[in-house]
Amino acid sequence: MKKVVILGSTGSVGVNALRVIARHRDAFKVVGLTANTNAELLAGQANSFKPRLLGIGDPSQYARVKSALKTPKRVLKGIEGLIEIASMKEADIVLVAMSGTACIRPLIAAIGAKKRIALANKEAIVSAGPIVMGMARSLGVEIIPVDSEHNSIFQCIRSENKESIKKIFLMGTGGPLKNIARNIFDRLNPSRILAHPIWKMGKKISVDSATMMNKGLEVIEASYLFGMDTKKIEVLLHPEAIIHSMVEFKDGNIMANLFYPDMRFPIFYALNYPERRVSHLPRLDFSKMRNITFDMPNHRKFPALELCYYAARRGGTYPAALNSANEEAVKLYLEGKIRFTRVVDAIKKVLKRHKNTPSPSIGDILNVDRWAKEEVKRLC
Amino acid sequence: MKKVVILGSTGSVGVNALRVIARHRDAFKVVGLTANTNAELLAGQANSFKPRLLGIGDPSQYARVKSALKTPKRVLKGIEGLIEIASMKEADIVLVAMSGTACIRPLIAAIGAKKRIALANKEAIVSAGPIVMGMARSLGVEIIPVDSEHNSIFQCIRSENKESIKKIFLMGTGGPLKNIARNIFDRLNPSRILAHPIWKMGKKISVDSATMMNKGLEVIEASYLFGMDTKKIEVLLHPEAIIHSMVEFKDGNIMANLFYPDMRFPIFYALNYPERRVSHLPRLDFSKMRNITFDMPNHRKFPALELCYYAARRGGTYPAALNSANEEAVKLYLEGKIRFTRVVDAIKKVLKRHKNTPSPSIGDILNVDRWAKEEVKRLC
Repeated sequence: MKKVVILGSTGSVGVNALRVIARHRDAFKVVGLTANTNAELLAGQANSFKPRLLGIGDPSQYARVKSALKTPKRVLKGIEGLIEIASMKEADIVLVAMSGTACIRPLIAAIGAKKRIALANKEAIVSAGPIVMGMARSLGVEIIPVDSEHNSIFQCIRSENKESIKKIFLMGTGGPLKNIARNIFDRLNPSRILAHPIWKMGKKISVDSATMMNKGLEVIEASYLFGMDTKKIEVLLHPEAIIHSMVEFKDGNIMANLFYPDMRFPIFYALNYPERRVSHLPRLDFSKMRNITFDMPNHRKFPALELCYYAARRGGTYPAALNSANEEAVKLYLEGKIRFTRVVDAIKKVLKRHKNTPSPSIGDILNVDRWAKEEVKRLC
Repeated sequence: MKKVVILGSTGSVGVNALRVIARHRDAFKVVGLTANTNAELLAGQANSFKPRLLGIGDPSQYARVKSALKTPKRVLKGIEGLIEIASMKEADIVLVAMSGTACIRPLIAAIGAKKRIALANKEAIVSAGPIVMGMARSLGVEIIPVDSEHNSIFQCIRSENKESIKKIFLMGTGGPLKNIARNIFDRLNPSRILAHPIWKMGKKISVDSATMMNKGLEVIEASYLFGMDTKKIEVLLHPEAIIHSMVEFKDGNIMANLFYPDMRFPIFYALNYPERRVSHLPRLDFSKMRNITFDMPNHRKFPALELCYYAARRGGTYPAALNSANEEAVKLYLEGKIRFTRVVDAIKKVLKRHKNTPSPSIGDILNVDRWAKEEVKRLC
């Protein structure tokens, strides 16, 4: 029986993880759950799954969590509370499903406590990839990606010699604006921007899909997770989202991973790794899915992609600056304060003003995080 | 430097293997070559690759091989000669690229001599699968399939626990008659029957593709090679021949293997296994290949498929009887002695008259081979 902590259990990935665990209570025991603000849902999950510890990131929600619990339970609060749960003694695996850079410190705590990591957050790897991966390597901690594309890449190369990889095809649907002219992007209703054709996700990542910043961040994420130069990572569009990524080897063979587009697949895979257990998830039916297509991304229409390759080439704190600027700009867009195309424009300006720190510490990255967010606010 | 024997070097796979080896002379040394009848080509290959031993299956061709050699070389003849070369001491790997059941005894000799096997012949596994695989397992001999579909399956499961496999999707183009009405099959010119849309192959296998017997034999082959019940092997059509096969695991994940449709890929993979070396083969270009399709096989139009599932369910000597009857019927078709649709009809009749021997010996299988071929001649 694997003992599981979920950081960010009220988000889209966290909720799906608990759906998976509910079907497999013989295999998993939830020992810790955390959320940022959603007190009611967190308490409801606790009432059902009975973890030993709960954590709430926003201390002002503490009392609401407490009062919604059916039986009294210890509830920790603030970032220090999340860190304590991330490294709790009895946990075997920590699913990091918080969004944004807020997860960097809990993630590092979990790695420091030598927990196996199921990683659904991409921002921590984008901003602090070399530190996180270096620490995991030196402590022998395995990080199983939960982002569907990276989970697929992980499955394609799990038994292979990393030296024999030639190229990664990082697949994307193209997002909700693939077939819409750029000159009307700013006139679209936010509900159109948030309506992803395949995946139901949180608001932040939905906006990132619309700008294609999400795919760009995934390029950087793949580069750090798999130790590959971004030159060897090519974005390939595949609107049906059946093939979730592919890896080409030096001998010309390509391995691909396919599954019905449902986040429960990579979650289930990561929780069970290295085993493959029987799942009750919907299967691909090729008698109904007779045609799949590929397309190339339009870099002029979606400049976020090139920005990400640029930040990755520069290295140091560039990816952190890019990622934090994006977080803030998306927040402003969702608050109705800036237009859609201003999101990527703002990031571009921040990167122009950024002073790089090569080989940064976590402190440097958290400073850049604050700086980039302030810059976006100032510029917009 | 791997020392390679090629049994059947003048056939389509043999010739492609020598093309691959010619590009990688630093990695491979040819030590033995054999052919059945093509004396001139065999001698020409020997003049270029300088193996220590040559073998010619048809003893009447011995003098022609000898006279076409630039420098004198030992040439063995007949089945005993092929067996000697299959087990020659210095060989590291034996590529079995002969067609038909004639390869059973040389293949068994190579396994007995504990050579790694690159197996391009499917008839030996169809007819004598349990014996061949059982012997390989007990001697710790690795068999790397070269048939493109089985090579793909092998790559999909190489690191996986066999218990976690749920299903194999065995891909096929559908052959040259996929879009042609069955009632005109017998009026087609043999050149139309032999014109495969994707693969250039020998005549026997081209006829097998047209009847879809080839795919049915591959179902039986996969069943023995990977120890899977044929119930778990589904034929899926994919006319572009980009995905060469797929494996579904119990957790719902599907792994697929893709390569540009060229037999040199599986040959190169098998010769290098377990390494992956840099190849100079043509790469898949997704910017040019934007659309791939799937389709279901038409069992009524191509009854050979069901016959193969039937023979596999019966087990024992049924697959051998089916395979040998097919060899003879295809021979009669290619000699212009029977109509195209009679090929599968004849096999069906032979299977009806077949008396099964469960757990057969090699002797039993060779007897069935003779019996089935005689039956076809008698019936046609």
